[in-house]
Amino acid sequence: MAHLYQVSYGKPDYEQLLLQETIFHNANGYIGVRGCLEEGVPAGKDTIRGSYINGFYDFAPMNQAEKLYGLTEEKQTMVNVADTQTIYVSIDGERCALEEGEILEGARTLDMDGGFTLRSFLYQTQKGRQVRVAVKRMTSFALQPLFTIEYRVEAVNFDGEIEFLSVHQGRVENYCNPNDPRVAGERMIHLQQEEVHCENGTSYITSSATHSRLRVCTAVAHRLSPEPVHEREWVEETAVKRSYRVSLKAGQTAILEKYTIFADSVRSRDCRQAAEQAMQQALAQGLAHWYQEQREYLRQFWENSALEIVGDDALASAVNYNLYQLLQSVSKDAYGNIAAKGLSGEGYEGHYFWDTEMYIQPFFVLTNPQISKNLIAYRYETLQAAREHARILGHKKGALYPWRTIMGRECSGYFPSGSAQYHINGDIAYAAVAYYLATGDLDFMAQKGAEIVYETARLWMDAGNETNGTFQIHTVTGPDEYTCLVNNNYFTNVNAQYNLHWAVRLYQLLEAAGKNQAAARIKLTEAEVQSFAEAEQKMYLPYDEALGINPQDDSFLSKKRWDLAHTPKENFPLLLHYHPMYLYRHQVCKQADTVLAHFIFEDAQRMETIRNSFLYYEKITTHDSSLSTCIYSIVASRLGMKEKAYAYFGDSAKLDLFNTHKNTKDGIHTANMGGTYMAIVYGFGGLRLKERGLHLAPYLPDGWESYRFRFLYRGSQIEAVVDASGTSLSLKKGEPVEVFLHGDACVVK
Amino acid sequence: MAHLYQVSYGKPDYEQLLLQETIFHNANGYIGVRGCLEEGVPAGKDTIRGSYINGFYDFAPMNQAEKLYGLTEEKQTMVNVADTQTIYVSIDGERCALEEGEILEGARTLDMDGGFTLRSFLYQTQKGRQVRVAVKRMTSFALQPLFTIEYRVEAVNFDGEIEFLSVHQGRVENYCNPNDPRVAGERMIHLQQEEVHCENGTSYITSSATHSRLRVCTAVAHRLSPEPVHEREWVEETAVKRSYRVSLKAGQTAILEKYTIFADSVRSRDCRQAAEQAMQQALAQGLAHWYQEQREYLRQFWENSALEIVGDDALASAVNYNLYQLLQSVSKDAYGNIAAKGLSGEGYEGHYFWDTEMYIQPFFVLTNPQISKNLIAYRYETLQAAREHARILGHKKGALYPWRTIMGRECSGYFPSGSAQYHINGDIAYAAVAYYLATGDLDFMAQKGAEIVYETARLWMDAGNETNGTFQIHTVTGPDEYTCLVNNNYFTNVNAQYNLHWAVRLYQLLEAAGKNQAAARIKLTEAEVQSFAEAEQKMYLPYDEALGINPQDDSFLSKKRWDLAHTPKENFPLLLHYHPMYLYRHQVCKQADTVLAHFIFEDAQRMETIRNSFLYYEKITTHDSSLSTCIYSIVASRLGMKEKAYAYFGDSAKLDLFNTHKNTKDGIHTANMGGTYMAIVYGFGGLRLKERGLHLAPYLPDGWESYRFRFLYRGSQIEAVVDASGTSLSLKKGEPVEVFLHGDACVVK
Repeated sequence: MAHLYQVSYGKPDYEQLLLQETIFHNANGYIGVRGCLEEGVPAGKDTIRGSYINGFYDFAPMNQAEKLYGLTEEKQTMVNVADTQTIYVSIDGERCALEEGEILEGARTLDMDGGFTLRSFLYQTQKGRQVRVAVKRMTSFALQPLFTIEYRVEAVNFDGEIEFLSVHQGRVENYCNPNDPRVAGERMIHLQQEEVHCENGTSYITSSATHSRLRVCTAVAHRLSPEPVHEREWVEETAVKRSYRVSLKAGQTAILEKYTIFADSVRSRDCRQAAEQAMQQALAQGLAHWYQEQREYLRQFWENSALEIVGDDALASAVNYNLYQLLQSVSKDAYGNIAAKGLSGEGYEGHYFWDTEMYIQPFFVLTNPQISKNLIAYRYETLQAAREHARILGHKKGALYPWRTIMGRECSGYFPSGSAQYHINGDIAYAAVAYYLATGDLDFMAQKGAEIVYETARLWMDAGNETNGTFQIHTVTGPDEYTCLVNNNYFTNVNAQYNLHWAVRLYQLLEAAGKNQAAARIKLTEAEVQSFAEAEQKMYLPYDEALGINPQDDSFLSKKRWDLAHTPKENFPLLLHYHPMYLYRHQVCKQADTVLAHFIFEDAQRMETIRNSFLYYEKITTHDSSLSTCIYSIVASRLGMKEKAYAYFGDSAKLDLFNTHKNTKDGIHTANMGGTYMAIVYGFGGLRLKERGLHLAPYLPDGWESYRFRFLYRGSQIEAVVDASGTSLSLKKGEPVEVFLHGDACVVK
Repeated sequence: MAHLYQVSYGKPDYEQLLLQETIFHNANGYIGVRGCLEEGVPAGKDTIRGSYINGFYDFAPMNQAEKLYGLTEEKQTMVNVADTQTIYVSIDGERCALEEGEILEGARTLDMDGGFTLRSFLYQTQKGRQVRVAVKRMTSFALQPLFTIEYRVEAVNFDGEIEFLSVHQGRVENYCNPNDPRVAGERMIHLQQEEVHCENGTSYITSSATHSRLRVCTAVAHRLSPEPVHEREWVEETAVKRSYRVSLKAGQTAILEKYTIFADSVRSRDCRQAAEQAMQQALAQGLAHWYQEQREYLRQFWENSALEIVGDDALASAVNYNLYQLLQSVSKDAYGNIAAKGLSGEGYEGHYFWDTEMYIQPFFVLTNPQISKNLIAYRYETLQAAREHARILGHKKGALYPWRTIMGRECSGYFPSGSAQYHINGDIAYAAVAYYLATGDLDFMAQKGAEIVYETARLWMDAGNETNGTFQIHTVTGPDEYTCLVNNNYFTNVNAQYNLHWAVRLYQLLEAAGKNQAAARIKLTEAEVQSFAEAEQKMYLPYDEALGINPQDDSFLSKKRWDLAHTPKENFPLLLHYHPMYLYRHQVCKQADTVLAHFIFEDAQRMETIRNSFLYYEKITTHDSSLSTCIYSIVASRLGMKEKAYAYFGDSAKLDLFNTHKNTKDGIHTANMGGTYMAIVYGFGGLRLKERGLHLAPYLPDGWESYRFRFLYRGSQIEAVVDASGTSLSLKKGEPVEVFLHGDACVVK
């Protein structure tokens, strides 16, 4: 089955175009370019014209209304690095632009096998000249710094001159909207151009970020066919422009190939030189070569990630779209991670959250262990910053990961729903352990993983306290941001318990293997490990006898219940219509919290309790967060509530393509995309990675004929096919391996 | 006994001078002028040169690091309105200034009977000319807009020319210090000069505030003796300057009288005209007249407020200083209130807090019912803003007073220790009730007081919820700002209970008197009042059986105890050295919270519980707030812990004069000043205003020979004299009245 997403392209609808900038953006995990029109939009129309580099940031002040000790006063922000998208086309002197002539027919396509986007349309100028335009764009997976635009113009019904004016602009700004709390509120120029010049037909613009002093170089080169009749170059203070004029007869096509290279000082000592080298490589091999490499890369990706659904094409297509976006978004090295919006927009300012570990890693850990490992390595690289963060928050030992960050320091301005989410520590430890469970890669744990697990475990010891013989954790916030600064959030406590458990287990495993250098490095003692084990044992997990559920925290059940049924529809999401304190005072959840715990740590409770909890929290959860419905789907699957599971899954799968949260213009929701995957593989498929092995318990959702998915476990690739007759597992690569199917051990051969 | 405070004045010590700007400021409740040197300080030396009008403000943006619904994004700030202090003096061409010549001897005096400050010194120029300078300043209680400087220069050892250069400057700024969270962080010009001109020898500068559009006019006029030999005037864009030259023989004195009038558009439709009229009145009567009026005003003040201590002169002097400052700080009309720093400085930006009701009203309600009534009337004037504030916080009914404000809207930027302090509602209701208990003035309750009590009671009904048959209040913050957003803060709940109780009582009293228009105005129903009574009955007051104390809130006792004994001294106040979340996670109190409840609502608990609580909280209270030691003193008195009571009282009394909190430069601590009074009258004197009457239970602190205080009760003035032989009460004015002395009813005749 081809992986393709297509919409028609026609009359100007600038709101749709803004959304399409996100939907059709090109990214490869290193660079991301929004799918803006090369020719731009008319003045006054909104557009977010940006190109981003994963992990490239500037610092910006964060003003606190009242200064209190330790509050974040400086954030990192993802920087729009340059504009190399801009190409203006003239047809015998008439501009080719939406607002000038007429689009007779057209389409925008994302080809997820070829790894490119295509905008094609038949255009008629006011004087009646028709051109057929096809713009193909690619960010190369094979050559990460490379972004290409292939701009084709066919003269349909005239002989005449086509002029391309191609711009390479260094002076760019980030998008801002003072009325939307989810994007930057103030205009700010982050980059200063240090050098603008041309050499051998390639233009180079080197800029540095005002506060971080990081540097970025963009290089642009062109190839043209047929040979231009006229060519000109302008080198300006912050930009380079080139114009080409080509003579065509009716039926002939002019092609402009525009190559852009991005290089940055995070990864290269000399980014100018790195850009030059990459450009030479890009030009030497030519576009056809990179298209071929792209196709090969994606063939492997789909082979490893194959997730096919027979019986609901729209959902199947949406699921593939989501997986492709995860691949586009995730860094392929440890200098970056995966932002909440990937590289598709500026929402949440390019910050990395727990989304990575709890919603996206579950996909990569089963399909691409190298990426999974990189994501953990990134957390290891920022472990020192997490230690410093813990000190700011008063802790004498351990590390506390920031709630949102690019380079490792906390960027959360409002700590009650930011830094207070201590569970991120457990989330990161959980992902490191999941990588170990999926791969058995003890060496990586010895090098990096264990140190993360040890230092996060230490933090719980300092943050918690023993009360009445139990280990309690006070004044933290769980995943649900509608209830902040509480005691004994169930999710946090069970998460901490797992973290402590694995600190002890890894200590034992690495000691036994003689590889426990991490413990020596951080002076972890036997006594400390013993205290971890005790805290794990004594961990307090709130349980309400009367309701038979786990309360979200100590006082949650004593609050007023929010009356969701009588809340006006226009008052959602609640966070945009109610004061936080009012939300905190009610039983109302933005997202899965205890229910998430019931998925991740299902063995901590009886199934009866999980069922009661699910039904209880379902009534008071708004799913105002995009991280929620997928989890409800998975737990509904686990509880055999097939219809609910499918409905929640559908909500999750369609979020971005159908813009159901109304903010996809600011970027895709990567966590939810991972959640869609989870809803199938962990939900319908019942996959769990546990200490005693990998478990599957698939069922077939009503209305589907079948579905199949592949995953890697301990180096072997397994395919599961689920249809009306049941589940069949087959070994696609590697050695036979044991898994549990519906609780029974079986060896897949 | 004369009421006088004096320090010597000599060699330049700019830190002391900065402190003295506060200590020797002049204010009358309407205007306040800091005690800056007329000649200024050398460049680079810190000074806070300001003149303020009570209730005059500009709006300023309050940037929230993350925008959340309902967070305050605009604050009010007290504006430095003009500089009319500046006078430069030349002695035969040599400047008279600290850094130029030499101070041979000198003193600064606050005369609290005359109501003026005096700076007098013998000065020698570099060329050896000596002058004796005396600068007398007054803000008039009789003519509120009037501020005067009488500048006398005596030629001691030479014949020559004295030149005065007197400045009237409209272009002024507020003080800022980006490193101190307690004052403004950014430079901002709040006033634009609209008119600068002179008429009949008087200069007028009219300015308007940039955002509030409020207008202020200052007028300045001079009188000189002897007649000047030369006189000149400059009218500049934002200022008017005047110079006078006078010829003196040795032994002769030159006197410059500088009259300033302040008028504002909050109080006058045409502030320019108001200033002109007041200036005519001021000049017509002359300085001697206003000195006389001032003395008469203060004679009455001391007569009504007399608080004499025999046996500890230093403390007695500090106490009188504090009472005088309260008089200087408090508004004499309902357009203003009493700021946390009075009119003495810019700390807390001139905002009014609960300090007024809980720390300062207890003084005025016993000594000056008219002022007490004004303070309640101010809250009545801002009741509509409080209703709007309640809506922002999600409440459908009732009013929620802002935590800090000037004109009624919330100015708190960090809501967990700001707007979350719902107890301010109960505090304001408490003060209104106290006024009624002290005066029996039911008419005022009918007009204004009851509506406040009703609307605040309504808010509790909407904020609270019934759980397990009890009425609970969740997600609020009590007085202790080291523990925020908690459930069932004991102080808040008992306070709400009292508020509900009095809503019911006033409803009954006003119904019986046929004066319940307030209920009709706000459509208060019988059923609603019935629900108040039920909530009062069911109010949940946390109590811990094992410790026999009232826990500060539901979860307080389960937190880690802070180890105060092992906290380095330099880490106090803790708020400047620990992240708020770290503080919240511990049992540690910034100030009296449950202990304050035990003073205010002592009848809610057995004395044994109060004793246990006192001893428990004492160990974990830092008194980092200036509102704390006075309360500990009062409760210690109640518990018969005389030594502790005296020690806490001493800490409170000396706070500003000894600058023990190291921030008196930013202004006096008015709440603590009221607290000093309370520690004597309510503490040592055991005075309580209860529904069943006024109670006294005085004892004599060790080391004191005697003390006496006067108070008004139901229109009669009573004097209590306490000495080794016991307490004697005498009637000074009015009808015989019944009070309770050590529990026994007695009629004072």
